Amino acid sequence: MSLETPRTHYTSQIDIEQIGDDKVTVCGWVHEVRDLGGICFVVVRDREGRAQITLVKKKIDKEIFDAARKLVRESIVAVTGTAKAEGKAPNGYEIIPESIVVLNEAESPLPMDTTGKVDAELDTRLDSRFMDLRRERTTAIFKIRHEVLRAVRDFLSKDGYIETCSPKVVATATEGGTSLFPITYFDREAFLNQSPQLFKQILMSGGLDKVFEIGPIFRAEEHDTRRHLNEATSIDIEASFLDHFDVMEVLEDMVAYVYEQVIENEAASLKALDIELSVPKTPFMKVPYSQAIDIVNAESEETVEWGGDLGTVAEHTIGEHVFKETGESHYFITDWPTEIKPFYAMPYEDNPLISKSFDMMHRTMELSSGAQRIHIHDMLKARIESQGLDSDGFDFYLRAFKYGMPPHSGWGIGCERLVMTMLSVENIRDTVLFPRDRKRLSP
Amino acid sequence: MSLETPRTHYTSQIDIEQIGDDKVTVCGWVHEVRDLGGICFVVVRDREGRAQITLVKKKIDKEIFDAARKLVRESIVAVTGTAKAEGKAPNGYEIIPESIVVLNEAESPLPMDTTGKVDAELDTRLDSRFMDLRRERTTAIFKIRHEVLRAVRDFLSKDGYIETCSPKVVATATEGGTSLFPITYFDREAFLNQSPQLFKQILMSGGLDKVFEIGPIFRAEEHDTRRHLNEATSIDIEASFLDHFDVMEVLEDMVAYVYEQVIENEAASLKALDIELSVPKTPFMKVPYSQAIDIVNAESEETVEWGGDLGTVAEHTIGEHVFKETGESHYFITDWPTEIKPFYAMPYEDNPLISKSFDMMHRTMELSSGAQRIHIHDMLKARIESQGLDSDGFDFYLRAFKYGMPPHSGWGIGCERLVMTMLSVENIRDTVLFPRDRKRLSP
Repeated sequence: MSLETPRTHYTSQIDIEQIGDDKVTVCGWVHEVRDLGGICFVVVRDREGRAQITLVKKKIDKEIFDAARKLVRESIVAVTGTAKAEGKAPNGYEIIPESIVVLNEAESPLPMDTTGKVDAELDTRLDSRFMDLRRERTTAIFKIRHEVLRAVRDFLSKDGYIETCSPKVVATATEGGTSLFPITYFDREAFLNQSPQLFKQILMSGGLDKVFEIGPIFRAEEHDTRRHLNEATSIDIEASFLDHFDVMEVLEDMVAYVYEQVIENEAASLKALDIELSVPKTPFMKVPYSQAIDIVNAESEETVEWGGDLGTVAEHTIGEHVFKETGESHYFITDWPTEIKPFYAMPYEDNPLISKSFDMMHRTMELSSGAQRIHIHDMLKARIESQGLDSDGFDFYLRAFKYGMPPHSGWGIGCERLVMTMLSVENIRDTVLFPRDRKRLSP
Repeated sequence: MSLETPRTHYTSQIDIEQIGDDKVTVCGWVHEVRDLGGICFVVVRDREGRAQITLVKKKIDKEIFDAARKLVRESIVAVTGTAKAEGKAPNGYEIIPESIVVLNEAESPLPMDTTGKVDAELDTRLDSRFMDLRRERTTAIFKIRHEVLRAVRDFLSKDGYIETCSPKVVATATEGGTSLFPITYFDREAFLNQSPQLFKQILMSGGLDKVFEIGPIFRAEEHDTRRHLNEATSIDIEASFLDHFDVMEVLEDMVAYVYEQVIENEAASLKALDIELSVPKTPFMKVPYSQAIDIVNAESEETVEWGGDLGTVAEHTIGEHVFKETGESHYFITDWPTEIKPFYAMPYEDNPLISKSFDMMHRTMELSSGAQRIHIHDMLKARIESQGLDSDGFDFYLRAFKYGMPPHSGWGIGCERLVMTMLSVENIRDTVLFPRDRKRLSP
């Protein structure tokens, strides 16, 4: 009822003391063949590690020995035998094989080195992602990414957030008409959604109270930097009867929890990446925008006037300032000028030039944006129009504000940037299996 | 640091014995106002239930009493007061208010009835999803959908599956050129992905061993039925060194686990839907295709020749047959003719006309398709070409089979159909917050 030689263990699961003389079968890639004449070592690699297969010419069937010597690197094998303690081998054991079945032979030469001895360029690695993933370092990133998403959902589910799915094919831009990929939707024009923003707000009117979504977002921005993608994974929440301070607390607690869980559950992956992670201390420092520009103007060569956006130099200057003061990488910039935030950010009642908005920053880049939202229909409609947008296109959204919309707040955080800053990854493309950018549409 | 009147409890969380004379604040929608002259009852609704606010004219401040009588239905209020036992009220308590703050007044008339007294048409409900969600029945479906996804991830994560994300913007069709939505990707043509199939297979070559993905898929099919969507959520797995029987076992165990978890964690939602759920018995019955068509030919007026696909009547006939025999709704149809399955399904070595493929069925419809896949490069390339496809377009995929591709198997199951069949929902659109079909692109 199964493959002829079913796997009994991952290479990391074989415990010599427990297993005794029981047969084991490991399945994986031929990582290395060392033929020393009288003895031949074959290293088999699977997702969880490596196993040494030891063949002593005098003690083993000639046919198996000869076959082992001729194994082609990166071929797929199933090795059955008994495990013996061997201190010098990976995981402290070696396997004395009874059979080595080649399940799929690899061609050679290989399109890319996977031993880690030769460093390949990013583009080469992405072109041959199936080879790149055979490097321990690459797999470690994606194991950690899995754990990040698991921990995020765990945290939010336990806090009463309901997972929702918003449509990716939409008729209207979320935040104006730029940066959209057009789709031919049967005989109509549609777009790929930039953000679940409008939909998660509608759900607040529907009474779902607290929701989260983790899904793809699409931005047709032309930039080609190491921090931008045209298709990314966004982690979004929206919560009723909470203000911007409340959801900042949710965000910082969630980030701290995610770090904790990665440290607890992905120790081997962190070790493979040679990273010692520590949990960010909460609460994160809050720097009001007006104070942030003072820091930039005092400590960098840039000048930012009140109302101006913060560029890369500004972000770095503030990040270094906060790091010197607190020893922490994460912080908030709060109370942004209303005009440079999206139309749905709620202005302060006593000073409408400033909004109840925030960015959550890492020392090296922006991670998240959020705000208390406008929940008053007429104010929202006026804000849409004051940004030069046609409020008719937002009718499906504005209707939800007329018949009982609670005060609400929320944020979105990029999954890739969260992983990237956690692991000090240089290029965001290294945190996505099959990245999409201005130039890359394949694989 | 928070909204002026922060919520202390959901309506379902107030425990009279525990709370004593402590102040409570509930926040929500004005569900009902019953003004009996000397006494006025206001029912406030939130995601978790309802609370009765009781105002006795003689005992309460005139201003509050008069304001309460004039509350507009579906307005947003925050009510602060003390809770007293009241057997006839929802959750066994009533709140004697000290303040009722209107946070956002609703317009009237409302665009849709939400009391459940009037049944609205599906289209009306979808047009005003923000109103529809205020019906207990609608919210119950989405709470259960959340739990289904949570349970799926929990099951797969514990079984060693790594969550991965494949791109939604792709250059090549997964299974031929039909049914694709074209995108303008900068100056190039691209498509919305129909399925993560090719990408999850590439990851097997990369050694991720066992992966899952839950994400949107897009099919430009013109059908307009109660079982089809143009944008849906697919739950996909792919696993190395497992055959089709192994992954059928994963699938049936996962479905049973999901039912178990929904029963355990969503009892209130099931009650709201008036559904008594029982866990499907595993293993599910396996009906080989050849036997399935015998059943159709014997028990229905349709005739299916060997090699023909199974339509709705055929599926129902087989479903009823299995249900009569086993009392169970779930079963597999296995061993399909190779020609009517996608190119990547592995033919049996001893009879290549039949493939190691399966559909997992519910009595009422197909839920899932899967197979052991072809892992041999040349065989796969020949199969692609024999289906009239251009293998050059699959180069990014075929390369992954040349340099060490393990035997592997997998399946995909539609999240919406899983929820739909579990809850006996008539129309698949009722399981999606904002469905996309031939006609619907908004909200």
